[in-house]
Amino acid sequence: MISIEKSSQTKIDKTDFDNLTFGQVFTDHMMISDFKDGEWHEPVIKPYGPLSIDPSARVFHYGQAVFEGMKAYKDKDEKIWMFRPEQNFERINASSKRLAIPEFPKDFFFNGLETLLKLEKDWIKQGFGNSLYIRPFVIATEAGVSASPAKEYKFMIICSPAQSYYSGEVRVKFSDKFSRAADGGVGFAKAAGNYGAQFYPTNLAKEEGYQQIVWTDANSHEYLEEAGTMNIFFRIGDKLITAPISDRILDGVTRKSVIALAERMNIPMEVRKVTVQEILEAADSGNLKEMFGSGTATVINPITGFGNKGKNYDLPKLEDSYAHAFKDTLMKIQYNEAEDPFGWRYEVKE
Amino acid sequence: MISIEKSSQTKIDKTDFDNLTFGQVFTDHMMISDFKDGEWHEPVIKPYGPLSIDPSARVFHYGQAVFEGMKAYKDKDEKIWMFRPEQNFERINASSKRLAIPEFPKDFFFNGLETLLKLEKDWIKQGFGNSLYIRPFVIATEAGVSASPAKEYKFMIICSPAQSYYSGEVRVKFSDKFSRAADGGVGFAKAAGNYGAQFYPTNLAKEEGYQQIVWTDANSHEYLEEAGTMNIFFRIGDKLITAPISDRILDGVTRKSVIALAERMNIPMEVRKVTVQEILEAADSGNLKEMFGSGTATVINPITGFGNKGKNYDLPKLEDSYAHAFKDTLMKIQYNEAEDPFGWRYEVKE
Ligand SMILES: Cc1ncc(COP(=O)(O)O)c(C=O)c1O
Ligand SMILES: Cc1ncc(COP(=O)(O)O)c(C=O)c1O
Repeated sequence: MISIEKSSQTKIDKTDFDNLTFGQVFTDHMMISDFKDGEWHEPVIKPYGPLSIDPSARVFHYGQAVFEGMKAYKDKDEKIWMFRPEQNFERINASSKRLAIPEFPKDFFFNGLETLLKLEKDWIKQGFGNSLYIRPFVIATEAGVSASPAKEYKFMIICSPAQSYYSGEVRVKFSDKFSRAADGGVGFAKAAGNYGAQFYPTNLAKEEGYQQIVWTDANSHEYLEEAGTMNIFFRIGDKLITAPISDRILDGVTRKSVIALAERMNIPMEVRKVTVQEILEAADSGNLKEMFGSGTATVINPITGFGNKGKNYDLPKLEDSYAHAFKDTLMKIQYNEAEDPFGWRYEVKE
Repeated sequence: MISIEKSSQTKIDKTDFDNLTFGQVFTDHMMISDFKDGEWHEPVIKPYGPLSIDPSARVFHYGQAVFEGMKAYKDKDEKIWMFRPEQNFERINASSKRLAIPEFPKDFFFNGLETLLKLEKDWIKQGFGNSLYIRPFVIATEAGVSASPAKEYKFMIICSPAQSYYSGEVRVKFSDKFSRAADGGVGFAKAAGNYGAQFYPTNLAKEEGYQQIVWTDANSHEYLEEAGTMNIFFRIGDKLITAPISDRILDGVTRKSVIALAERMNIPMEVRKVTVQEILEAADSGNLKEMFGSGTATVINPITGFGNKGKNYDLPKLEDSYAHAFKDTLMKIQYNEAEDPFGWRYEVKE
């Protein structure tokens, strides 16, 4: 049994659920488990509030920290669903391993998560597109500035209500100078440091009129890999292509779901290296039909154009895009409005 | 004038200055400056103690954090000295820029630092090898889990008394699989995430009997670059070689000081790419005389042997090593026991 310390008041009445900025409002409670004396301790649920951490804690100095991103949905019968949460559980432990953080026990993860979600169920609003964004994360809290793995950590889960949002026109820049990850590095992990490292190049891209960067391989900048928080798909003619995962690329849950759906929907799908060159040629010949990103936050994010070495390309506006079909199919599965042939849905039972 | 809130008690009497573990004990005070409303605010000095930070702060999730490492020394006349501190000031701002963190004003840095050092001067012990290790760092404190630069930060300085230590035999492993930094990445910055990313490969190397890894380039693993917190020098015959800095390699203050000293001491010095191949050949032919690391924490760290793809090599034990000569010369300059032809010493005046 997970101990729950209830918040004496709720912020829910003060929250405008029709005007949510992503990741700004948090629910009333949070889950915490401490790693101490060589083991993870039973999670506890407490009122959401600030942490008291020594200024010499490893997380501040050495970025020993990983995270996950997942969502909970409420269907028309008030049932609460998650989407493939065991994937996120496995991935946070894969990330932890690479960052020399002790892996978290499966029962603590699911018990803690589900207890928290049931406590916060009023924060999950019905309606296609509404969700509760869930952020599990681990930070190294041990005091001391020596560059070695900590012996104390906190595994936490915080939650933030989210709306479906129209992200506007998304134009991306193919990176030709900066890079996100090295072979043999931590790109495949949701390591905190991977994200802060992208802010500066992304700011420069924004100044040039792009919203995001599509990262290329650091060696040659010839292969298109992924975006900041999305995997990337390309449609040439009727064929869909995406890069294979590697130690540089995050193994996205949405990405692997799109790949599985493509097969089911009889969409020709190739998982292989994608060259900048072939995308430019396809764009020039009119064969590049679509580009879209996949990720938990936006599900599927259509890309309207891209820039490469100062030259800009527009993508056609399609009536019957793959992006739309995948988004619709995935969301209907997530919101329990369609059959779930893959068993992806996970009910958070009372 | 920097406001000082004095600690009501001191830990100094409880501190065993003859048995210090690096980075474990901190002095009584810390410096803090907040970035808010678009600007850095005048630093304040407060009793050392925990920070209260929202669990959604950017530093926990996106590793938006950088740091520095420097030292203060006390000479025989009780004067306090630093070593090239303007280099660390410039470097933390270069690191900040790459991490999309606003640069810190020079007068805040030096006023805050010197006020803190004068307040903590009893923590700086006389004696060759004793020092106060100084850790300036910046963390993104703004609440909110959206992957974009924060609008609020803390710039802090904390201090930890340090002894000279004999680090024992240091055997290093040449990395042939993992890597530390990508071209176009953040390797040149003292970004927090660069360090946590090294813990796991370093643990594996430790299991194989090495203390540290010498990182090679991520593309080919053919070029030797730097170690976890040290730049690396190789001596072949009488010639000293070290890799040039790049966007993957930290521009070490000790490294550039060794390069300058080598010229003055008429030691032939080459700053150029160093191949694993040439080091193996030099080791086989008996021409590889020395390897050593350079960094603020240990000054010069002689390396006793190395491993490459499972094969181990020992380095000779020299009577008159370059490592010893550089360490002695550098430390005498640092402790005001020798002439300072380069103007590297910086006095913290009462
Ligand atoms: C770097 C990166 N790529 C891709 C994704 C998409 O992964 P998922 O579909 O599991 O959310 C994410 C975010 O979650 C990410 O951080
Ligand atoms: C990655 C890395 N290389 C080299 C160094 C050595 O630099 P410096 O001589 O300025 O201390 C450090 C540490 O300070 C470091 O973190």
